[in-house]
Amino acid sequence: MKKADIGLIGIAVMGQALALNMESKGFTVAVYDMNPDETVAGFISGRAEGKNIIGTFTLEELVSRLERPRRIMMMIRAGKPVDDYIEKLLPLLEPGDILIDGGNSHFPDTMRRCALLESKGLLYIGTGVSGGEEGALRGPSMMPGGSPAAWPYVKPIFQSICAKTEDGTPCCDWVGENGAGHFVKMIHNGIEYGDMQLICEAYSILSAVGFTPDEMSEIFRGWNKTELKSYLIEITGEILAKKDTDGTPLIDKILDTAGQKGTGKWTGITALDEGVPLTLITEAVFARCLSAAKDARTAASRLFPRPEVKFTGSRRECIEDVRQALYAAKIISYAQGYDLMRAAARTYGWNLNYGGIALMWRGGCIIRSAFLGKIRDAYAENPELENLITAPYFRQALTELLPAWRRVVAAAVTCGVPVPAMSAALAYFDGYTSARLPANLLQAQRDYFGSHTYERLDAPRGQFFHTDWTGTSAATAGSYTV
Amino acid sequence: MKKADIGLIGIAVMGQALALNMESKGFTVAVYDMNPDETVAGFISGRAEGKNIIGTFTLEELVSRLERPRRIMMMIRAGKPVDDYIEKLLPLLEPGDILIDGGNSHFPDTMRRCALLESKGLLYIGTGVSGGEEGALRGPSMMPGGSPAAWPYVKPIFQSICAKTEDGTPCCDWVGENGAGHFVKMIHNGIEYGDMQLICEAYSILSAVGFTPDEMSEIFRGWNKTELKSYLIEITGEILAKKDTDGTPLIDKILDTAGQKGTGKWTGITALDEGVPLTLITEAVFARCLSAAKDARTAASRLFPRPEVKFTGSRRECIEDVRQALYAAKIISYAQGYDLMRAAARTYGWNLNYGGIALMWRGGCIIRSAFLGKIRDAYAENPELENLITAPYFRQALTELLPAWRRVVAAAVTCGVPVPAMSAALAYFDGYTSARLPANLLQAQRDYFGSHTYERLDAPRGQFFHTDWTGTSAATAGSYTV
Repeated sequence: MKKADIGLIGIAVMGQALALNMESKGFTVAVYDMNPDETVAGFISGRAEGKNIIGTFTLEELVSRLERPRRIMMMIRAGKPVDDYIEKLLPLLEPGDILIDGGNSHFPDTMRRCALLESKGLLYIGTGVSGGEEGALRGPSMMPGGSPAAWPYVKPIFQSICAKTEDGTPCCDWVGENGAGHFVKMIHNGIEYGDMQLICEAYSILSAVGFTPDEMSEIFRGWNKTELKSYLIEITGEILAKKDTDGTPLIDKILDTAGQKGTGKWTGITALDEGVPLTLITEAVFARCLSAAKDARTAASRLFPRPEVKFTGSRRECIEDVRQALYAAKIISYAQGYDLMRAAARTYGWNLNYGGIALMWRGGCIIRSAFLGKIRDAYAENPELENLITAPYFRQALTELLPAWRRVVAAAVTCGVPVPAMSAALAYFDGYTSARLPANLLQAQRDYFGSHTYERLDAPRGQFFHTDWTGTSAATAGSYTV
Repeated sequence: MKKADIGLIGIAVMGQALALNMESKGFTVAVYDMNPDETVAGFISGRAEGKNIIGTFTLEELVSRLERPRRIMMMIRAGKPVDDYIEKLLPLLEPGDILIDGGNSHFPDTMRRCALLESKGLLYIGTGVSGGEEGALRGPSMMPGGSPAAWPYVKPIFQSICAKTEDGTPCCDWVGENGAGHFVKMIHNGIEYGDMQLICEAYSILSAVGFTPDEMSEIFRGWNKTELKSYLIEITGEILAKKDTDGTPLIDKILDTAGQKGTGKWTGITALDEGVPLTLITEAVFARCLSAAKDARTAASRLFPRPEVKFTGSRRECIEDVRQALYAAKIISYAQGYDLMRAAARTYGWNLNYGGIALMWRGGCIIRSAFLGKIRDAYAENPELENLITAPYFRQALTELLPAWRRVVAAAVTCGVPVPAMSAALAYFDGYTSARLPANLLQAQRDYFGSHTYERLDAPRGQFFHTDWTGTSAATAGSYTV
């Protein structure tokens, strides 16, 4: 009997698409699902018919049909199901076999599982897979991390099924040890939250100014020929043009309450844990939470009068201002996301290739854009770049974009159009480029009420001072070194 | 031998202050410390000399010197030390004895410990204690939660040592079961982060306009006679007047890098976990993180030209505008904090008394203010209040404050003065009072690339729709109900 190159567990939408993609590239795939009688049988007699896809009906059968070292990829729900399958597979696998988790697992879980499998002589990979069903079928962006020894065995499959950039570079490369792949996928999803929120804010401002969905569709299609060229801008142009069955714009019929899954929230939590000011993505997550409170918002809207928005300026200039504000804030979002990757790499000992990560996101995934090529270039020029905004290309861009960005946020603030992400990005930019921030007052307050001590501008770092602010204590102001 | 009313473990700064406070109210206190020979002996022969404070040198001795049911309060570092003491004390205690943690423990730890002690027939209290050393000595704000059966035994001590409001009400009352007390203390600390950041932003704007520290000291002293009257505004007025040994303002010598401990971060993480848009406090935490990157900021400041700030308006009007912006943003911060308390109360089954919590913070603690009385009133009027901003008093206040708030944020944005908290608050206000947000576009995007489905304005909630946006799929737009 012919042995398969790889086994796939979980053949729902994503699993089926990946299996078909692998088979189309010449690999033989064995598939298994927890409901084998329905799902496996249905797939084999359906979309997989006549293809090199082998249906298996027990885990034992799946394992027995694989070339060694075995490669088994799980495409299942994150969380407990992954641990359950690991427990069932452990007794069936042999040293050197490779287990792959292609779901949206939280990276600390992947770190734990990687250590467990390695302790048993097995190898583990946790890989981000982005691009939805379409991407899984035609070429996703893939971000694998885990046991380095597993990569040579997985690389030929992943790099043949994944998306490619225009010059043919695969949008998949080794990210790093243990949880690094799932961590980078989490950052990808966080950035996706930010990109979508920024587009919503641009749409919100243009709506307030009075543009119709058809006009806005044209605007976004135009923007897709500029530095903003990206999948999300492209589909926004299409969405705004879409008509409902009655011929009116469909967008106007859709309820304005967004859901949020775990990855955006995890990104914000990781930023707080690392002490990295990831303000834009966090605002994007919170904006979704706020959107969900539709009833409360509707009730509150009746209690407060809104400023009347009366736009009298040049429509052409307004469009270009909003485009520049969106672009500027997007640069900040990626700068913050990269800052978080740098911090986590230090914490977890990962040697991340920042330019390579931009390249992996260049095709196949939701955030794919021309812009990512510029990020790759920035890290190619300086792999130790501390913050994206200081790279020459982005420094130049931000300098040019700043006046419009300030105009747009100031106008939105004046008119009552909420732009939490654009304004958080601007506050971050203004803070990051301030040699002096008002935290001196904060330190004085903490020393006043909690004797927390402070450092001085005219003394070396690491030398701490305490002041008797009220003059009531017996002790006089003194200094000591920790 | 006389038995003590309560035992205290950990007699560093806070523990000593609490012991002296308790003794001054007529209670006999037995004290123990992990370095008894130095610390206990030193305390007993020093500040505790001649007082009803009993030094003990082993945990067994401490336990043997207490009235039953025993009350033992730990004033030690949060984290593992608390678990270590619990392990050591468990074999020494008897059913009905009460163990109290007065440190800054994370509320999930307190929930776990409370369950553990109750499973052994013991009682547990986790209590927030706010006000620093001065508060601990003269009357802190105290937020106890845990085993309800323990409260009658602890109440007489806590309510006699705590701070009192002007009418004599103790700033300490029962908060709720298991981790509720430490949860409310965490919210208090998060709000403290927000209050301090807002004051820093006001100071930052006034500095940019050109006011000197002496002038700003007068401004804050003036504000302390308005609705902003509070401990933090008061000490800011004193701090800004303080001179260095050379006679120049001390504030100008202090390094602008703020530290952050766990509680602010925990508040932001809890908000993300609960899906509550706690934007202001989260921005305040991130602002501290950004302030810490002093070297990166200084380098970046050289790369970007800053807008020239040239103030030509009325100084008096500017001061009043900034005051109103600070007050408005402060209302939002508390509204968000209370929103998070409501969400957590649902999650954890706590029956929180929101007005009572405002009262507990009314005196003794860092965020004490006149303002909290208005919050107490709002919840007295409507205990089910969904959001503080919709209470008549705050609705009226915000309506009046809005024009100045918008002017200040717009001016700061235009001039490059970072006001992350004031602007996040305004974006939240504008979002919360918007019947319509742009999340309809976001839902369309998610349906486009991930078939996530959406709801419609013209269909009942809970009915989900999917559109074939590109027209390439065989399926037509359909609807199904989940």
